[in-house]
Amino acid sequence: MKSNKLWGGRFSDQTNLEVEFFTSSQLFDRRLAEQDIIGSIAHARMLCKCGVLSENERDMIVSGLQTINEEIETEAFVWSDRHEDVHMNIEARLTELIGDTGKKLHTARSRNDQVATDLRLYLRKHIDHIIRNIGLLQSVIIDLAEREIHTIMPGLTHLQTAQPISCGHHLMAWWEMLERDSQRFTDCRTRVNVSPLGSAALAGTSFAIDRKMTAEELDFEEVSNNSLDSVSDRDFIMEFQSVAALTAIHLSRICEDLSLWASQPFGFIDLGDDFCTGSSIMPQKKNPDVVELIRGKSARVVGNLTSILVLMKGQALGYNRDNQEDKEPLFDTIETIGPCLDMLCQMLPGISFDRETMRSASIEGYTTATDLADYLVKKDIPFRDAHAAVGKAVAHAANQKVELSDLSLKSLQSFCEKIEGDVFDILKIEGSVKSRNHVGGTSPEQVSLQIQSARRKIEARRKNTT
Amino acid sequence: MKSNKLWGGRFSDQTNLEVEFFTSSQLFDRRLAEQDIIGSIAHARMLCKCGVLSENERDMIVSGLQTINEEIETEAFVWSDRHEDVHMNIEARLTELIGDTGKKLHTARSRNDQVATDLRLYLRKHIDHIIRNIGLLQSVIIDLAEREIHTIMPGLTHLQTAQPISCGHHLMAWWEMLERDSQRFTDCRTRVNVSPLGSAALAGTSFAIDRKMTAEELDFEEVSNNSLDSVSDRDFIMEFQSVAALTAIHLSRICEDLSLWASQPFGFIDLGDDFCTGSSIMPQKKNPDVVELIRGKSARVVGNLTSILVLMKGQALGYNRDNQEDKEPLFDTIETIGPCLDMLCQMLPGISFDRETMRSASIEGYTTATDLADYLVKKDIPFRDAHAAVGKAVAHAANQKVELSDLSLKSLQSFCEKIEGDVFDILKIEGSVKSRNHVGGTSPEQVSLQIQSARRKIEARRKNTT
Amino acid sequence: MKSNKLWGGRFSDQTNLEVEFFTSSQLFDRRLAEQDIIGSIAHARMLCKCGVLSENERDMIVSGLQTINEEIETEAFVWSDRHEDVHMNIEARLTELIGDTGKKLHTARSRNDQVATDLRLYLRKHIDHIIRNIGLLQSVIIDLAEREIHTIMPGLTHLQTAQPISCGHHLMAWWEMLERDSQRFTDCRTRVNVSPLGSAALAGTSFAIDRKMTAEELDFEEVSNNSLDSVSDRDFIMEFQSVAALTAIHLSRICEDLSLWASQPFGFIDLGDDFCTGSSIMPQKKNPDVVELIRGKSARVVGNLTSILVLMKGQALGYNRDNQEDKEPLFDTIETIGPCLDMLCQMLPGISFDRETMRSASIEGYTTATDLADYLVKKDIPFRDAHAAVGKAVAHAANQKVELSDLSLKSLQSFCEKIEGDVFDILKIEGSVKSRNHVGGTSPEQVSLQIQSARRKIEARRKNTT
Amino acid sequence: MKSNKLWGGRFSDQTNLEVEFFTSSQLFDRRLAEQDIIGSIAHARMLCKCGVLSENERDMIVSGLQTINEEIETEAFVWSDRHEDVHMNIEARLTELIGDTGKKLHTARSRNDQVATDLRLYLRKHIDHIIRNIGLLQSVIIDLAEREIHTIMPGLTHLQTAQPISCGHHLMAWWEMLERDSQRFTDCRTRVNVSPLGSAALAGTSFAIDRKMTAEELDFEEVSNNSLDSVSDRDFIMEFQSVAALTAIHLSRICEDLSLWASQPFGFIDLGDDFCTGSSIMPQKKNPDVVELIRGKSARVVGNLTSILVLMKGQALGYNRDNQEDKEPLFDTIETIGPCLDMLCQMLPGISFDRETMRSASIEGYTTATDLADYLVKKDIPFRDAHAAVGKAVAHAANQKVELSDLSLKSLQSFCEKIEGDVFDILKIEGSVKSRNHVGGTSPEQVSLQIQSARRKIEARRKNTT
Repeated sequence: MKSNKLWGGRFSDQTNLEVEFFTSSQLFDRRLAEQDIIGSIAHARMLCKCGVLSENERDMIVSGLQTINEEIETEAFVWSDRHEDVHMNIEARLTELIGDTGKKLHTARSRNDQVATDLRLYLRKHIDHIIRNIGLLQSVIIDLAEREIHTIMPGLTHLQTAQPISCGHHLMAWWEMLERDSQRFTDCRTRVNVSPLGSAALAGTSFAIDRKMTAEELDFEEVSNNSLDSVSDRDFIMEFQSVAALTAIHLSRICEDLSLWASQPFGFIDLGDDFCTGSSIMPQKKNPDVVELIRGKSARVVGNLTSILVLMKGQALGYNRDNQEDKEPLFDTIETIGPCLDMLCQMLPGISFDRETMRSASIEGYTTATDLADYLVKKDIPFRDAHAAVGKAVAHAANQKVELSDLSLKSLQSFCEKIEGDVFDILKIEGSVKSRNHVGGTSPEQVSLQIQSARRKIEARRKNTT
Repeated sequence: MKSNKLWGGRFSDQTNLEVEFFTSSQLFDRRLAEQDIIGSIAHARMLCKCGVLSENERDMIVSGLQTINEEIETEAFVWSDRHEDVHMNIEARLTELIGDTGKKLHTARSRNDQVATDLRLYLRKHIDHIIRNIGLLQSVIIDLAEREIHTIMPGLTHLQTAQPISCGHHLMAWWEMLERDSQRFTDCRTRVNVSPLGSAALAGTSFAIDRKMTAEELDFEEVSNNSLDSVSDRDFIMEFQSVAALTAIHLSRICEDLSLWASQPFGFIDLGDDFCTGSSIMPQKKNPDVVELIRGKSARVVGNLTSILVLMKGQALGYNRDNQEDKEPLFDTIETIGPCLDMLCQMLPGISFDRETMRSASIEGYTTATDLADYLVKKDIPFRDAHAAVGKAVAHAANQKVELSDLSLKSLQSFCEKIEGDVFDILKIEGSVKSRNHVGGTSPEQVSLQIQSARRKIEARRKNTT
Repeated sequence: MKSNKLWGGRFSDQTNLEVEFFTSSQLFDRRLAEQDIIGSIAHARMLCKCGVLSENERDMIVSGLQTINEEIETEAFVWSDRHEDVHMNIEARLTELIGDTGKKLHTARSRNDQVATDLRLYLRKHIDHIIRNIGLLQSVIIDLAEREIHTIMPGLTHLQTAQPISCGHHLMAWWEMLERDSQRFTDCRTRVNVSPLGSAALAGTSFAIDRKMTAEELDFEEVSNNSLDSVSDRDFIMEFQSVAALTAIHLSRICEDLSLWASQPFGFIDLGDDFCTGSSIMPQKKNPDVVELIRGKSARVVGNLTSILVLMKGQALGYNRDNQEDKEPLFDTIETIGPCLDMLCQMLPGISFDRETMRSASIEGYTTATDLADYLVKKDIPFRDAHAAVGKAVAHAANQKVELSDLSLKSLQSFCEKIEGDVFDILKIEGSVKSRNHVGGTSPEQVSLQIQSARRKIEARRKNTT
Repeated sequence: MKSNKLWGGRFSDQTNLEVEFFTSSQLFDRRLAEQDIIGSIAHARMLCKCGVLSENERDMIVSGLQTINEEIETEAFVWSDRHEDVHMNIEARLTELIGDTGKKLHTARSRNDQVATDLRLYLRKHIDHIIRNIGLLQSVIIDLAEREIHTIMPGLTHLQTAQPISCGHHLMAWWEMLERDSQRFTDCRTRVNVSPLGSAALAGTSFAIDRKMTAEELDFEEVSNNSLDSVSDRDFIMEFQSVAALTAIHLSRICEDLSLWASQPFGFIDLGDDFCTGSSIMPQKKNPDVVELIRGKSARVVGNLTSILVLMKGQALGYNRDNQEDKEPLFDTIETIGPCLDMLCQMLPGISFDRETMRSASIEGYTTATDLADYLVKKDIPFRDAHAAVGKAVAHAANQKVELSDLSLKSLQSFCEKIEGDVFDILKIEGSVKSRNHVGGTSPEQVSLQIQSARRKIEARRKNTT
């Protein structure tokens, strides 16, 4: 008995059912159905323009495909492993619906260029979603930063209290991270948005096709230059996975901050009951699960990046079936990044900051020691000597278990005689924060300027994309 | 309105539905249902023995859990995101079924030790499956190796023809790789098979529980020594993922061999129509998709390993919700490795070797040059000088586009005068193969010994596990 | 006894020598010395303009730093673990050379912004090198492609002979891969080329510094907006490592092609003795070591990417010492990618193609079956039916062990009666290649157009960067 | 002019110098010199026993190799890229020293089995070092745990205060993690300790060698079964890298704990000045650099694991030059793990715990809420109802900003009337800790038993290995 596969002409055996299941991708690549249909419609129109299909054939095909699209949207479509992938499922149904004309659709193309087209269309759409979601999160951060611009908190280095900073300043650091992620997605989109359609199996086709026409129909910016490259490479997926991994790492860092701040010893924030869950055993617990899950989910995105890199490593050119494995990690990353951004968007506005606790934590730990050193430099002590003198003063205060501002003027002068009565002003955290008043500095004035500029950027981008 | 969560006592708000969906794991952790129920039954029995539950309560709980098990097996069970995970889904249903007694089950445990128990039971079961599957594949390889023991093929180094070897020898190299994988899974199993049950949230419990009893009921070899460690660490998953990744890399290498052998320029094997598919555009194609997919799937297993390592990196002790993310990559690896082993098991016996082509390929490329060098050594030329002389002879033959055995004795003697008429024997590939007759060597005699020993090992293991 | 560290004021103990060695980075971060000095000179000039240093002090510092630069270049400089890193080594030497004024240099900055500045300057320089190297390799490929434009070879999918293609076409697929790599490095450079100098420890400084001035002196395009972000994030390194990993994967694919082509069964190319080495045991061997090493080196670049991602995952904001570990993998990637590109540049021109072997391999395997199907479509057979008919013809020919063009017209007609005498033209590989004559297709005409366009791009870029 | 390489017979050109440098490995593989010489000595003795070398030749070779060993140890040895790797450098020097007899050493072996032998010997030695270092660290932890057995600290889940635990208990969780790491290294060692020597290039050799003899001389437990496998696979390195990565992840978790504990908001520990460094700008800082570097170094070990997996993925059998890239990541991991373990060994004993701060932190956050729930269960409230009642009590107390034990009996009874006067005992943290008195629980009694058992295990292992 002969094979009933669309490609089965030369085969004498039925494929074994387990093999069919093992090789089938329709369970996951059906996510590409919308793009597959759009791509096929564009292809059919082009075949007609080039004289391969009659107008009537084209119309039958287009209308058949539209019917299938509806069937899929309404979940009336019957998917089957017998037709191994999304392409074969749709083509088989098309022929069922419109008869022999359906068999003409695959003229002058191969699944190799078809799936590359589908993937690029799909990815383009989701990059746009992600860029939009990042923008929304950035807006939320701007609002929060503005709200907390005058909240003073300890800036940490080495997880040690370092210098007092504006909480708004800290939040705007997150904004900057996301801004670069957004740029990277935009750069990636440019390389995704190139049409491989017409590359056929690897060499192009003997039909006189018009690749520009399909590219324009599908809103691709460019036509790919080399048919072999177009069907073989997946660097647009590798790049997307890299950019997504960087974003995920950024989110993991934001969530590490939140997790620390929400811990009892820090006690800086309350995340809101909505975004926490309880413990099955400890009745008092309020766990920041959302924060932890976002941090944890960075791991799967990095795993997905590793996966596509390992997949492509050392593959000889030409399409290889290995590449079927590019899809699930891609879908997984898309379906991970979006909700993570969305959860943060929803959670951040509800965070309440315990300003008093943050302020207290900013005072402990000699956070204005650098200000004292700077004070001495302004009195003409070389910085290294100033640094050393203040170091000794701190060691002395630590031994006494007091803060620098608790030392007497006389005691301070024992470390450097140039210290005068005005020193106590600069030992205050408000003064310290306010004094860092240059581009990028933590003074409220600068943070405010940064916020305004950020708002303008977001606004400009929003206009651009609408 | 108050929370309806089992842990909701202290919470004032309903969890937001999107958060519920974001944090829910029931869609994937329901795979653990069987283990969750077995573990709960053991726990209930222990609570009874320790006087926390009455015999009647125990029996109600056990019977309720058995009912739930059937409901799950028959797909009558209604899963819900409202009950966030497999544990809460089952416990809620239990209370629905047997009333307030159900609420007693969670005494003296936490989801933290519960999920660790479930995971270990689940993983133990699947490690056993994998070990069995590897054994089956090894048996298939043994049979194939025996069949092809006298087939001579070119052994490659640097993908360059190096020396003639027995095809059986090559296949038995695969066997050895799998043997070590199997050992690693066995070693991993020992560390998986330790009971964390009774560790509760992280500190143990104030009830006088009997952890040995539950461990015995659940066939665990040991009881874990430290409750904090038991709920915090996931190194048993990291180890499993590592071992699986090594296995996957081995499979990728086997498939690379097969892919090369099946290519037209090599032409060593025919894989059988069953395990190939056709092209949507090129009617002549017969593509080794199964081979390529197995090779490709190694990428996702490596990705899954990366994922768990990234997940655990830098996590402070105590259970963190990040760990929910340990599961999907674990399930994915389990569900990848099994079918890959199974496909190879089915495919290998049907491979037909084109012995003539393989033999020809073994002759080309001066594969017996080393034999000539050895011949000279035996005539007392230092190896390096022999090597150099033969190198020149090969260069000469290559220039003439002939094989070494095509050179005249006189011509050969011009490179080293100790060469005599008997040289032509050792320039034959059969002689070359046969002469490598020591432990691990490629001579049919040695390959045969290796096969016998392999068969004994497989047999011994089979007996051990039954 | 007091610490002799520059930061040692508050410390009472000497650091333990082993700790000193463990934490020291000077052995590898001395690579940043040039950038460190350039950055310090710019900083000193700015401090002078802002009134923190006198003109005399500035000149002493600048001249001292220039002296140190020479000492380093001439290897007269004495590096020491006592001064833990490149910054401290240089600053200590500066004070040795010019006395107390040297201690003023570190005013209004921290090592946190200093190292970020150094890294960005260093990376910017090496990105430029890499872009230039990629361009050179692309030029080499263009020349080779032009040389082999009429060489016909089998295009492979699934490592199976698929359709005849122009060898030039295959080579230009490599060109396209590299073109996108080059674009990605250019995009990355934009985000690298931002000045963090003046961010100090994390909050900025209380001195009225002019960050734009240092940015301009150092040819940075922009000044960073947020001091905390500037010292905490390393996404510019993550992005570089990603882009490098993609490039490395591309190189691994090119080398896989070369490795296959150089194998005896393929026999498509001779790599030239210069780029091969011999075997210590097998006198006939000529191994494509360079090709294999480049393929292998892709692994370390991917490893380096993983490393930086794992490093940054979950780090709370603020600079952490973990980040010292960002450097070695970065240096390693830079020192890997450059030589790999360079080796390929040198090797490719010397490759000789065995055109006859390639042509023969293009004929075997029914590579013009698609052409036959297209032929039938043009005679109005629906593509799927044409595909099926040709599939049967191929199966028949394969059984007979002949090529399609060896079948009689009558025999061919038994599969589809529309076949006529003109069929034998399209069954020729030259005709097949020539017929794929549309954008991106493999016809020599198209490949030639592609080459011209590629040349123009390279030329334009070269002009741009000079 | 002819090549001067030892394998250069068939080559007509000198290798290009850049190629020589690119392919050379002697700069890093010279680490294997000791093993290379030991292996060669064993090989020479075996060749003599088998009649290939005379006793005189053997003695000359052995004595020559010993001379070289001394030259290397005293750094008198001149390494050169001309001899590409450690093997060729030593062999060339041997011939220089003892003349033509040196050229006989390479009889019946290849660099393929030679390097596999060297690597296994080298790795075996370093695994032993690592196991010993882990044991030392475990001993340090045991002492610290014993010291802090009665120190109460907050056990965390989700980084939220969960239940009071013994600090000794927490430390012993680290011990358990390391114990499994140690076991994994031991398991790995078994698979490393197998002799590949005699496998030659891939097929064995035509000399009647005695592989058992060399294996015994070199203390290998077994002889490898398959010569092709022996030279092709690197799974012993993959396994080592996996086990090391798991260990590194464990160390990163220990350091995350330490980093948190040393932060000002936690304030649990002081790490000792010896293991901290200062800031170049902030005179007050005392940064836990060692802790952070160890955490950061986990990233490079994971990167090294990725690297070897990517390297081996999809490699066809037979040795490929790609494998030269297995070494640097291996050496890097070895040289990373050892010092990290050593630093922790040195640092931990000097940590001082702020017991008062830890105790206070254990009280805040309603850490005995579970005890209250357990109390109610013992009064026959089903656990879930008890959990809910306590949840409400906690919410009430949190609103009042008081602890549970600050509520009046009457107030407590309003949440569950079964509460009686004895409730205040179980609300104390000492009582809570003490009550978790079962295997693995946190009560001092159990921790003490755990410590004793740990000490016995360490002792037993020490005896075993001496």
